[in-house]
Amino acid sequence: MTETAFQDCYIQSLIHCYGCGKNNPEGHQLKSYWLDNYEGSKTIAQFTPKPYHTAIPGFVYGGLLASLIDCHGTGSAAAIVHYKNDLAIGSDPSVRFVTAALNINYLAPTPINKQLELIGEFRHIKDNKVIVDITVSANNIMCAKGEVIAVKMSATFL
Amino acid sequence: MTETAFQDCYIQSLIHCYGCGKNNPEGHQLKSYWLDNYEGSKTIAQFTPKPYHTAIPGFVYGGLLASLIDCHGTGSAAAIVHYKNDLAIGSDPSVRFVTAALNINYLAPTPINKQLELIGEFRHIKDNKVIVDITVSANNIMCAKGEVIAVKMSATFL
Repeated sequence: MTETAFQDCYIQSLIHCYGCGKNNPEGHQLKSYWLDNYEGSKTIAQFTPKPYHTAIPGFVYGGLLASLIDCHGTGSAAAIVHYKNDLAIGSDPSVRFVTAALNINYLAPTPINKQLELIGEFRHIKDNKVIVDITVSANNIMCAKGEVIAVKMSATFL
Repeated sequence: MTETAFQDCYIQSLIHCYGCGKNNPEGHQLKSYWLDNYEGSKTIAQFTPKPYHTAIPGFVYGGLLASLIDCHGTGSAAAIVHYKNDLAIGSDPSVRFVTAALNINYLAPTPINKQLELIGEFRHIKDNKVIVDITVSANNIMCAKGEVIAVKMSATFL
């Protein structure tokens, strides 16, 4: 993995996200990176659920998986657009993405006591819109797959 | 709204969900009901985000909306199948639903300091599969709409 998480390069006003902001102490603080040997094409995030992130005893609740897929998707979108334009993700002016649509298929019950691995791949890359396909696996078993349709954040939020 | 939330009628082993379980003190404890005058056709849940459920300052993060839609969807699915079969939702044997797919469109930034209102309507009702369309509004402005494809929970989990 690359050294610095995409989300840790966001500008100061955008690092409070409950899902992935390093300045949100109550949040998940998800961190996304380029997958080793796949810079510019595949992304990775890992997350270990807390015991209380349960759906039914022993298994992760689907809302957490949705949240992780969402933040890994928008983070990956920001990363690939900067990469494609030969810009560092923390460069100014900042380009950030928000979620227009989130589509998830839950494939298998997700064990709560395992590290989850999210892998992102790009299906559509434009400066204003990126579509990211994301899988979530636990113990090398795919538990969910999702699609994040991310659109460029309005300048009014930056 | 009806007096008792759907989720509060679930059997003891199924009330630990982070999204809607009354026995999960760290969770959202979402509560779903029949909408007044729409018993058997429309459901409602209300939720006020915490200040830390932020995406960017002032707005709710999408993962929370996904979580609420998910739990309101599976709760509504359980409610309608019991209703259709003239059973109380807490009756034995319990019928519960899990999410097979969750599809969400984010329509507008969601203000964090307002009560959110989720309204569910049914598009497909079978004993083994229910599809629920759900809108999320804040201050009477629709911020997101989603579809929950809920399937009957395997008896091995009950």
